[in-house]
Amino acid sequence: MRKLRMGMVGGGIGSFIGDVHRKASSIDGQIELVCGAFSSSAEKSKRSGKELYLPEDRCYGSFAEMIEQEQKLPEGERMDFVSIVTPNHMHFEPAKLALENGFHVVCDKPMTLTPEESQTLVDLVEKTGLIFALTHNYTGYPMVKQARAMVREGDIGEIRKVQVTYHQGWLATEVEKTENKQAAWRTDPSRSGVGGALGDIGTHAENLLEFISGLQIKELAADLGRFGEGRLLDDDGNVLLRMSNGAKGTMSFSQIATGEENDLGIKIYGTRGSLEWYQEEPNKLYSRWLDKSLTVYTPGGNNLYPEAAESSRIPAGHPEGYLEAFATVYRSFAGVLQARLEGKEKEAEFPTVKDGLRGVQFIYAAVESDKNNASWVSL
Amino acid sequence: MRKLRMGMVGGGIGSFIGDVHRKASSIDGQIELVCGAFSSSAEKSKRSGKELYLPEDRCYGSFAEMIEQEQKLPEGERMDFVSIVTPNHMHFEPAKLALENGFHVVCDKPMTLTPEESQTLVDLVEKTGLIFALTHNYTGYPMVKQARAMVREGDIGEIRKVQVTYHQGWLATEVEKTENKQAAWRTDPSRSGVGGALGDIGTHAENLLEFISGLQIKELAADLGRFGEGRLLDDDGNVLLRMSNGAKGTMSFSQIATGEENDLGIKIYGTRGSLEWYQEEPNKLYSRWLDKSLTVYTPGGNNLYPEAAESSRIPAGHPEGYLEAFATVYRSFAGVLQARLEGKEKEAEFPTVKDGLRGVQFIYAAVESDKNNASWVSL
Amino acid sequence: MRKLRMGMVGGGIGSFIGDVHRKASSIDGQIELVCGAFSSSAEKSKRSGKELYLPEDRCYGSFAEMIEQEQKLPEGERMDFVSIVTPNHMHFEPAKLALENGFHVVCDKPMTLTPEESQTLVDLVEKTGLIFALTHNYTGYPMVKQARAMVREGDIGEIRKVQVTYHQGWLATEVEKTENKQAAWRTDPSRSGVGGALGDIGTHAENLLEFISGLQIKELAADLGRFGEGRLLDDDGNVLLRMSNGAKGTMSFSQIATGEENDLGIKIYGTRGSLEWYQEEPNKLYSRWLDKSLTVYTPGGNNLYPEAAESSRIPAGHPEGYLEAFATVYRSFAGVLQARLEGKEKEAEFPTVKDGLRGVQFIYAAVESDKNNASWVSL
Amino acid sequence: MRKLRMGMVGGGIGSFIGDVHRKASSIDGQIELVCGAFSSSAEKSKRSGKELYLPEDRCYGSFAEMIEQEQKLPEGERMDFVSIVTPNHMHFEPAKLALENGFHVVCDKPMTLTPEESQTLVDLVEKTGLIFALTHNYTGYPMVKQARAMVREGDIGEIRKVQVTYHQGWLATEVEKTENKQAAWRTDPSRSGVGGALGDIGTHAENLLEFISGLQIKELAADLGRFGEGRLLDDDGNVLLRMSNGAKGTMSFSQIATGEENDLGIKIYGTRGSLEWYQEEPNKLYSRWLDKSLTVYTPGGNNLYPEAAESSRIPAGHPEGYLEAFATVYRSFAGVLQARLEGKEKEAEFPTVKDGLRGVQFIYAAVESDKNNASWVSL
Repeated sequence: MRKLRMGMVGGGIGSFIGDVHRKASSIDGQIELVCGAFSSSAEKSKRSGKELYLPEDRCYGSFAEMIEQEQKLPEGERMDFVSIVTPNHMHFEPAKLALENGFHVVCDKPMTLTPEESQTLVDLVEKTGLIFALTHNYTGYPMVKQARAMVREGDIGEIRKVQVTYHQGWLATEVEKTENKQAAWRTDPSRSGVGGALGDIGTHAENLLEFISGLQIKELAADLGRFGEGRLLDDDGNVLLRMSNGAKGTMSFSQIATGEENDLGIKIYGTRGSLEWYQEEPNKLYSRWLDKSLTVYTPGGNNLYPEAAESSRIPAGHPEGYLEAFATVYRSFAGVLQARLEGKEKEAEFPTVKDGLRGVQFIYAAVESDKNNASWVSL
Repeated sequence: MRKLRMGMVGGGIGSFIGDVHRKASSIDGQIELVCGAFSSSAEKSKRSGKELYLPEDRCYGSFAEMIEQEQKLPEGERMDFVSIVTPNHMHFEPAKLALENGFHVVCDKPMTLTPEESQTLVDLVEKTGLIFALTHNYTGYPMVKQARAMVREGDIGEIRKVQVTYHQGWLATEVEKTENKQAAWRTDPSRSGVGGALGDIGTHAENLLEFISGLQIKELAADLGRFGEGRLLDDDGNVLLRMSNGAKGTMSFSQIATGEENDLGIKIYGTRGSLEWYQEEPNKLYSRWLDKSLTVYTPGGNNLYPEAAESSRIPAGHPEGYLEAFATVYRSFAGVLQARLEGKEKEAEFPTVKDGLRGVQFIYAAVESDKNNASWVSL
Repeated sequence: MRKLRMGMVGGGIGSFIGDVHRKASSIDGQIELVCGAFSSSAEKSKRSGKELYLPEDRCYGSFAEMIEQEQKLPEGERMDFVSIVTPNHMHFEPAKLALENGFHVVCDKPMTLTPEESQTLVDLVEKTGLIFALTHNYTGYPMVKQARAMVREGDIGEIRKVQVTYHQGWLATEVEKTENKQAAWRTDPSRSGVGGALGDIGTHAENLLEFISGLQIKELAADLGRFGEGRLLDDDGNVLLRMSNGAKGTMSFSQIATGEENDLGIKIYGTRGSLEWYQEEPNKLYSRWLDKSLTVYTPGGNNLYPEAAESSRIPAGHPEGYLEAFATVYRSFAGVLQARLEGKEKEAEFPTVKDGLRGVQFIYAAVESDKNNASWVSL
Repeated sequence: MRKLRMGMVGGGIGSFIGDVHRKASSIDGQIELVCGAFSSSAEKSKRSGKELYLPEDRCYGSFAEMIEQEQKLPEGERMDFVSIVTPNHMHFEPAKLALENGFHVVCDKPMTLTPEESQTLVDLVEKTGLIFALTHNYTGYPMVKQARAMVREGDIGEIRKVQVTYHQGWLATEVEKTENKQAAWRTDPSRSGVGGALGDIGTHAENLLEFISGLQIKELAADLGRFGEGRLLDDDGNVLLRMSNGAKGTMSFSQIATGEENDLGIKIYGTRGSLEWYQEEPNKLYSRWLDKSLTVYTPGGNNLYPEAAESSRIPAGHPEGYLEAFATVYRSFAGVLQARLEGKEKEAEFPTVKDGLRGVQFIYAAVESDKNNASWVSL
């Protein structure tokens, strides 16, 4: 076993999500950042690389250059995989090129701008057999894993009702008109795609719901809001859901929910019990029952399913947070990759290229529904 | 000033809501139960009355008898108002008869089975000038009053997003097939009307939303569930909302939300701030802001609007609950009635006959929408 | 069965606790206020009585007059018991006189100013066989009853560690120098006795601990604070506890805990499990376990002991608060009294005259310890 | 700037705290583990190092060997500092040797077994000018920094009352008699020193209290418990506190608090406001006020002092936990060391060798007090 070598696309100085990927990938000591195309400007890329203690010659001016040059390095030095942390419109090309050149991929979400692009990546992964992880990081929380296991094991019975909420307030004012780079690209259709809040956080809500419930959204009716003055993309969404098994529910997401920080929450009701979880207090999973008292599960605590127990790094009561959940996605990816390097196969616990396709389909379905006055659209 | 004299329709031994009305009306020491038609059986009515320490001759076998006989009593003895605590289908007739005979009315919700009946009561109240209070009791909580005042005073700016949830789990199994009387009539269209959970708790959610926000639901798209085997009425609902000012939102209500007790909650987002309140922890009102830290208001605490401050009976930190909120509706009603008795007029702070009409219109709109695959219906 | 007739000592207009007693005693419809000596001024007493809709001739100018005059009334009219809601220094005399004249007693806490007085009452109750309830109202909460039952049934094993906290902030400034009557007598040794916060809230903490744990405080070491300028009595206390079974713990109480409302809380740790409860969220009881997940009990919920289940008035999720807990003390008292009237005996679930003696002994022990630099004093 | 090079003493495979130090030191990408004496067995040390991807020749059989060999390496390769993560009895010798040989030190707490040893280290740090950080990691939480800043800036006025609680349940049964290594050394005086829970968690409580309040414990009265059968060291403690400014309070710590995970919490009451914080929900700081509503601060949120704002790595609502707080201690240490490498000086925000001395003095004072029946001992 050796440390895995990561090359990064995007994530230059000042980037939010690039830094998250770096911290998350380093926590478990299995992954090493060895190179990057941190910016479309070679000079900026080198400057970013320097701050990260990288040698200048492995700070590239473009992802194409990085992939080309790394290819030429000896196997023991060359990067193992590419981590793509750019805005949405810059996911597809580097992912495609990496796969075509034999590099595994970790990619931020939403995977691509269009379902067609996503399908291309699905096909490429299928064809090459390379490993592809999508960083729906919320799936990495131990209590999310516990929830998923409880549903799968039938603890709460057949699911009949779901409610997912993802409320943020950071776009409550038109900060995209200020120096806020995060807001600028997220409200710009050319960089974000057809969905605004829908792509940025709605896809997390969709993924979390399908991940935990083991169900698929069968059809949806979406009423999107564009409250910020001059906004072309949605900054708010209200959605009716019908699930693959007949369960019904609602989804509400918003980036104009004034004062909310990162209020992602989910309630799932089955015939025997129910589950409730909030991202801002990720270390508690509430479960209510037909005939038992309210039960609260905690990471490292009693009565956890193995996949939940194993996803904690430290003892019960020592809170793990967002970075650790993110790191768990990387750790799962690394586990599969390490196995591959040793000629073995291991099942992926992380969201894959297929989840990426599904997310983009969700965006398109919601946009179509919204255009037709929130009529039902199948997914 | 003297104690006000209440006659009750329904609420015999074993009744849930009848007992709540009695306790709530007695807390503040202004209202005295003097007579009742507690059951459609004269014998049962007398038995109930005896347990309530009432004289036998004022325990009537029907509301019609009660109204007729009380009419004949001298003014200083006769009941002042009727409190109607029967199942839904038994609200309209006694309310109508009481109003026609000069008695003020307190009535449980939903007000009637049909909008036409509700309109009849609205007209009667208008014509007679009698006082009519509808016990949407959740409006009586101090923190609900604070929320309403904050919206009205513009503290949170213009409302853009709302989310109302009312989840219970007591119908998660088909308890209507057991001895459960509460479940039996609530799942029976002949006694409940066209709405199941919709009428029972959906109307509370609708009323709370309109009460706090000062807005009206302009149109809705409702997808109702009938999950309990053999159920004719909805036991679950998922609703998209468009409010009179352009705000959007969702409503979710359910009585098959396994393990939930009485989980009514509301989130309201304005341009400057937001509000969050839960009925199960009624003594906290959370408010988030563009530029301030999360603020938590408490009854009897600092910085309350007068209507919130005045609705507490005991000092801060001494929790008041459901019965006290219910009692506040009675207290407001009693205040207006006492004023009337002294020849004065006082503004009603309690839900009125018009709120009752609105609630029934909401039920009908949701049922119509649901029949048309959750298409939009105006209210 | 008939309504029980209550005469009140103290509790004139503007009184906090008098109003609480009236509301609490009326909720269950079994007790009727029939007379009172609401003030030491006959005129004020009559004015208070008038607001309470009492006939003028049963509003007395002194408790002695009330007891004397009520004695002369026919049995079917005469009050059944006296409720004493005066400041501390005015508990003993009316309680003694009532007992000597055959009236049952409900008395606020702390029972008397001195242990000797308390002993006198204990002896009188023993001698007369009359019913005496002390309103340690926090014992009336359903979840407190559940906690007590769980300890008694051995659910949490042998108790080893306890922590009781009772923090209020209303004396953080010297409000006794303003018009605040509540503060005036509570900071005045002639009316409060030797304990300040100690008597006012420390005794509640002591009683709650002994009530739930079934243990007695064997010895204590108390370090009292007098932070308000010019205060003669303690407004803060820090106490080490050794319990009758060898368990250890701390008690902290304060009325200068700025911003706290009525933060009474308790943690009890046994060999198998533990309990945690807070008065400001009284409808949740948290229980942690060696080998199970955190469990949260709620009134009306699953898995309650009978005494907890029976102490709720309304279904799960409909919060009951301070007044209801207070009312439960009255209801228990009324139950015993009703039984007595029917010639039966029923066990008292409410705090008795012996708990009153214990509370005063606790005050004296803490004051003695404090005088000796927090040395150990046996109780 | 370059990555800082860390050598580790202790923390072999299976070690809890060693792994924490490694993860925490790596999160921010500034520190690299280059060598270690992970075990007193050279073979085990090499095995641990291999799992950490270290070259075999830098996995040493003893800390003495490590310090000696690293000394001989060229400056550009040699470790910069030693991180000591052994049980308590193995802190002093490696810390002393490192300092004597010019290596900076990060050391776990409690610093040494005796105050004399601690004094030796204080003197050595003074003499050598080397940087010494003690990992009282809870000081790294953003909300702890906010609390400290609020006190310092006078927001809550003069402190009058404190309450610190640190309850764990993992020693509720005698797990030291099983294979539990953590329990074995912590209950063994020869490896833990004179304090059990006192040294392990009591010192964290003491440090947190002094860190936030800016006050010192002036004297204490401690009643320690030894509940586990056969335990020589305390597993529970109850302490009265008198602070340097006249404030009073209590401390309660326990490792037999059944079911508790890592329940460290603190309440501090000043003349104008108060603070409340819990380690298990580290991202909320509650503040109550004389004249304002309850305020809740969150990392990355509004109205933070710079030191709190700067200690977050990710946006508001993205929870950071134990590892991040731990990492903040390392980051502060690294910042001072980087400055030193560039010939500058920077103020230490992390706990220092003097805090280490103070912690050991606290242990000794508590043990002495306990031996004398909880009499007062000055610190």
